[in-house]
Amino acid sequence: MTTETQTDLPAYCRSLAEQAQAASHALASTPGDVRDAALRRIADAIADAGDELIAANALDLEAGRAAGLSDAMLDRLTIDAARVGKIAASVRQIADQSDPVGAVLEGRVLPNGIKLEKVRVPIGVILIIFESRPNVTSDAAALCLKSGNAVILRGGKEAIHSNTALAGCIKRGLEESGIDPNAVALVETPDRAAVGELLRMEGVIDLCIPRGGESLIRAVVEQAHIPVIKHYTGNCHTYVDAHCDGAMAVQLCVNAKVQRTGVCNATETILLHHRCGVIEDVISALVQVGVEVRACDKTRKLFDGLKPATEDDYAAEFLDKIVAIKTVDTLDEAIEHINRYGSKHTDAIVSNDLAAVKRFVQAVDTANAMVNCSTRFSDGGEYGLGAEIGISTDKLHARGPMGAADLCTYKWVAYGNGQTRT
Amino acid sequence: MTTETQTDLPAYCRSLAEQAQAASHALASTPGDVRDAALRRIADAIADAGDELIAANALDLEAGRAAGLSDAMLDRLTIDAARVGKIAASVRQIADQSDPVGAVLEGRVLPNGIKLEKVRVPIGVILIIFESRPNVTSDAAALCLKSGNAVILRGGKEAIHSNTALAGCIKRGLEESGIDPNAVALVETPDRAAVGELLRMEGVIDLCIPRGGESLIRAVVEQAHIPVIKHYTGNCHTYVDAHCDGAMAVQLCVNAKVQRTGVCNATETILLHHRCGVIEDVISALVQVGVEVRACDKTRKLFDGLKPATEDDYAAEFLDKIVAIKTVDTLDEAIEHINRYGSKHTDAIVSNDLAAVKRFVQAVDTANAMVNCSTRFSDGGEYGLGAEIGISTDKLHARGPMGAADLCTYKWVAYGNGQTRT
Repeated sequence: MTTETQTDLPAYCRSLAEQAQAASHALASTPGDVRDAALRRIADAIADAGDELIAANALDLEAGRAAGLSDAMLDRLTIDAARVGKIAASVRQIADQSDPVGAVLEGRVLPNGIKLEKVRVPIGVILIIFESRPNVTSDAAALCLKSGNAVILRGGKEAIHSNTALAGCIKRGLEESGIDPNAVALVETPDRAAVGELLRMEGVIDLCIPRGGESLIRAVVEQAHIPVIKHYTGNCHTYVDAHCDGAMAVQLCVNAKVQRTGVCNATETILLHHRCGVIEDVISALVQVGVEVRACDKTRKLFDGLKPATEDDYAAEFLDKIVAIKTVDTLDEAIEHINRYGSKHTDAIVSNDLAAVKRFVQAVDTANAMVNCSTRFSDGGEYGLGAEIGISTDKLHARGPMGAADLCTYKWVAYGNGQTRT
Repeated sequence: MTTETQTDLPAYCRSLAEQAQAASHALASTPGDVRDAALRRIADAIADAGDELIAANALDLEAGRAAGLSDAMLDRLTIDAARVGKIAASVRQIADQSDPVGAVLEGRVLPNGIKLEKVRVPIGVILIIFESRPNVTSDAAALCLKSGNAVILRGGKEAIHSNTALAGCIKRGLEESGIDPNAVALVETPDRAAVGELLRMEGVIDLCIPRGGESLIRAVVEQAHIPVIKHYTGNCHTYVDAHCDGAMAVQLCVNAKVQRTGVCNATETILLHHRCGVIEDVISALVQVGVEVRACDKTRKLFDGLKPATEDDYAAEFLDKIVAIKTVDTLDEAIEHINRYGSKHTDAIVSNDLAAVKRFVQAVDTANAMVNCSTRFSDGGEYGLGAEIGISTDKLHARGPMGAADLCTYKWVAYGNGQTRT
């Protein structure tokens, strides 16, 4: 952006958003095959620009090293030839998904003869705020285009050169396809105030999806006058009921905790019914695979050498080989614990008791209730939703894993032949 | 409320909301027949308390007269014997609707054998902020209970005695049915700061639906950290295309404008294609029924004696026998006008041209696209949704008329038999 726009941030942001809105109006009637062809051209443009992307990324890596970013952060930031291929392949996969736009979600003929349809349509303009991974630039842009939306991308300043180079490829792909390149806008100023400006642009930007750490997301919610869909954390539970398959319970607890610890659908607290029969087996299995167990007093009386669990542990998203364990007297105590400490993300029950399963599924306030399977399955890919734009622990509009269809709203369309109201 | 609670408003609000949340957790597994039985007991309690309600209402009317409320406002505020009957009947009608909770919205067996269901569930705790009509107290409470939600009601201070008496009937009905009476909470302090407190109670209150004038709704959006579903105004359009049934066009324009002028789905601007052939007929018909026509220069050259339309007229929700008229050269000019000035509420096209209809329906960014019928049909009752909790001109979660099902979210439920992720 030029010096002129930097000195007038509100005007810059408004212009970016209004251009995106104009592009979104055109996209709303762009057929699915045209949007898919554009996605394939974008994938080609990314694949063809490997050297350019790697060179731009080198500038970010150099700045990152100078700023003292950790090795893990630098790894997330890195684009090499293999990753260029993966980024392009991911866009092609999104092109191959079925078109969510235009589906008739409901329909009926009213008594007065009007044919009423509820039709899925794009939301309009979506603002995605994200941190350091540059592949979010292309994935988010691709999912928004797939669903007929314009998108405004605000990435982390650590990845600015990489994101700008990727956005360039995207704009080339759009231009070659006859789609207004303003449909994908990258916020090019590092000024943090731009986010605040955009979050107040009610009537122009329809939705914000922030992706990143809890502090980023809280800052977005604090400032937003536009709707935000988000998840702060994943404090997921596995509850082992009195009536269960003990061997299954042990396997599910271990899988849910350790199969991948750094992800939001990993189990962080295990609740064990005092008569489940496998309290020691579950704990032994976890300790054997190197998990640090922090337990309630009741559990510690049954199993020596465990650290005590604090209130903070019950509320924690460890994202590590640490688990909180609590022995409960009843199913209802487990449900209350989850509704108190959980993050409404994913919560599992291991039980063969139909009434207990029914009660757990109804009473636990969660986006994903898992019965006799690992919490790790709550995932857009596993659910068959295709590529995921994020996970919602909100209750409005979309809940749980969000695919392209969740970037759509609906409109009612009424077809009459002259009906007037009396 | 006591003096003690008044001096600690945040604690009062938090306690109200947390008690409602606890009640909502119990409601989530309360069967539909139990919720319906409670609604019928509430209707009986209201019908039985006629004298009590009318006496409480008399206090509000007296205060209203002293405060100089207009006759129209006093009429909206009034509860007489006939209105008591209507209020009770409305609750019984909601009881008779089918249960939105528990419906399986999607379902499939995943390749790993997990049976996945997307099930409709209550949202949780809903805050309804409304102005003077006391019947909103019972209607909103009934729709929230119907959909398994707890509700916090904040009515206008003009109706505080009436609302308190109605809330008393509701609580009696709940108690008699074994449902926690905290499921319906009335904010009893007149302190305006209570609204701000409640709107910041993220994690406890799940949704706010404000019902009232634009300034009330803007104040709510400004303060809210929780999701808000709303509509500010209804600036609805009827567009008459070049290829149309002229007589139908005249009838639809008149009906959409004058059948009831004070409602949000009445047409406020009519757009006439310069070759529609009925410009004069439409205007004559409107003038004949006493509508004041404010027109663009092109139209005024065709029809003598019309006032000029200003930018403000195109943006106005007249709610009166006034209409803005613009002659347009193309369908696209009409679409652009609607997307610029409209309120995304309801917009109609009168046309026999399939391509024009398709383009209008796709390109106009509106909750309700009406083809060859009056804008007045966009209504929950007309659409067969049952009683309406409100209208949304938002795009997230619910759009257009909102019924009990729109007070629900969903949860994913995965039934496995020991699946672990690898």
